[in-house]
Amino acid sequence: MPSSRPVFFISDHTGLTAEVIGKSLLSQFSGQHFQIHNLPFIDSLDKIRAAVTRIDTTARECGRHPLVVATLTDPSARELLKTCDALVMDIYGHFLGMLESELGAAPQPRRGRAHGMQDLGAYHSRMDAVNFTLDADDGLNPGKYAVADLILAGVSRSGKTPTSLYMAMQYGLRVANYPLTQDDFDRPGLPPLLHPHLGKLWGLTLAPERLAQIREERRPGSRYATLETCRRELHEAAVRLHAAGVPVVDSTHRSVEEIAALIKQSLPPPPHQEI
Amino acid sequence: MPSSRPVFFISDHTGLTAEVIGKSLLSQFSGQHFQIHNLPFIDSLDKIRAAVTRIDTTARECGRHPLVVATLTDPSARELLKTCDALVMDIYGHFLGMLESELGAAPQPRRGRAHGMQDLGAYHSRMDAVNFTLDADDGLNPGKYAVADLILAGVSRSGKTPTSLYMAMQYGLRVANYPLTQDDFDRPGLPPLLHPHLGKLWGLTLAPERLAQIREERRPGSRYATLETCRRELHEAAVRLHAAGVPVVDSTHRSVEEIAALIKQSLPPPPHQEI
Repeated sequence: MPSSRPVFFISDHTGLTAEVIGKSLLSQFSGQHFQIHNLPFIDSLDKIRAAVTRIDTTARECGRHPLVVATLTDPSARELLKTCDALVMDIYGHFLGMLESELGAAPQPRRGRAHGMQDLGAYHSRMDAVNFTLDADDGLNPGKYAVADLILAGVSRSGKTPTSLYMAMQYGLRVANYPLTQDDFDRPGLPPLLHPHLGKLWGLTLAPERLAQIREERRPGSRYATLETCRRELHEAAVRLHAAGVPVVDSTHRSVEEIAALIKQSLPPPPHQEI
Repeated sequence: MPSSRPVFFISDHTGLTAEVIGKSLLSQFSGQHFQIHNLPFIDSLDKIRAAVTRIDTTARECGRHPLVVATLTDPSARELLKTCDALVMDIYGHFLGMLESELGAAPQPRRGRAHGMQDLGAYHSRMDAVNFTLDADDGLNPGKYAVADLILAGVSRSGKTPTSLYMAMQYGLRVANYPLTQDDFDRPGLPPLLHPHLGKLWGLTLAPERLAQIREERRPGSRYATLETCRRELHEAAVRLHAAGVPVVDSTHRSVEEIAALIKQSLPPPPHQEI
């Protein structure tokens, strides 16, 4: 088996943008093997020189031509990086040039503007959303539902908490979640405390087999984890959500990122965001 | 004041990659105003045609030439998108071409490989990490510290929980967190339950003024929120963390993304990740 090809994600800040773009591009080539090296905070010309040396050394050692995905804001750093013996995908170099012509303004190379705290208001509202979501996790504080952007409901282990937290962290949405349990199934309909908020309620479901597997990892051998219990609870929840006209997302084959994007797309405002 | 320039992030999947790249590029142009339109799940040629119409309509209505950042895996979709009257930054079109020559293999246009569940093992370990972090949040279950990748310690409201959750969600790390409170300050040193885990302990701190502001929002008028209390607790924590040789990150001017990237960079393994 051939050795995997080295890939470097180089950034002068957190490296998140380089990693997202890089993994996204590599994901289009299946059957290839890559070894990922993250080099964040490469924020001086000395560090760039050290990175170039590291790339060239790695190339010699493993005998493969490396790939480099770079988000470097400093043009001199970008020039230096090009001296390494690798395929350099210079994200900023390419697209900032296009933008500069279009906008009629030169970019100001400033680091860390994408994942930093430059927009303090937006950052704090994301952190507030995370705190809100923790406070309103798993049925806690239903008094806060009135000010929630969204409420997720579903049986235990249907993915409510990770999805809520992801939406809070990524989109700054205040997402509460409510667990549908046997107590709720002892009477018809959805729990009364959800009635005033149906317009912002979403259901989460998944295949009973998958749910049983997740619960079994959590509480091995319990009645809670049996396929029968899972089937029954999922059915009870589905009937009630459907009767109330609540949209339901199936998380069996969807990541939290996919569920979050799907739900967010359906939210009415804002039509656009100003930055 | 001139109207803001419309920007479209177009993707055939969640839109996360397009948004990260787009915001990262735009952040280099200060003093410009942009209105962001997210168009995720544009996964058919009909939807592309509708998107082109929407872009052209928006351009006519606001009289500004739009910017488009696109991550479309289907080459026909990319061709269609180019017919709109906008500056189209075609991320895949540009870099996949470079990669194709380098790798000697054609990309397989498959959607959703960057933020989906294709790598089930990696996805589940991220979700397990989120569950671990919730179970070991705020001093809960210290028995789990032995299997944590990292433990964050700091006074109440120093940012431990959002940072822990972000690291779990983004990097799949099992991050516990422990709140340093008056009980811990009544005796010298760090709490004994942290002693066996100093090698994976990190401290979080922030400016007392900022902490007082955060606490005041949480519990207005409380002694907990006074500058005096904040100063004293931060000092007590700092002395103990320093004496134990625990590295400390200041979150006053750092986002959770920045803190997470800083801490992760310092973790010894893995030197690289295989994908």
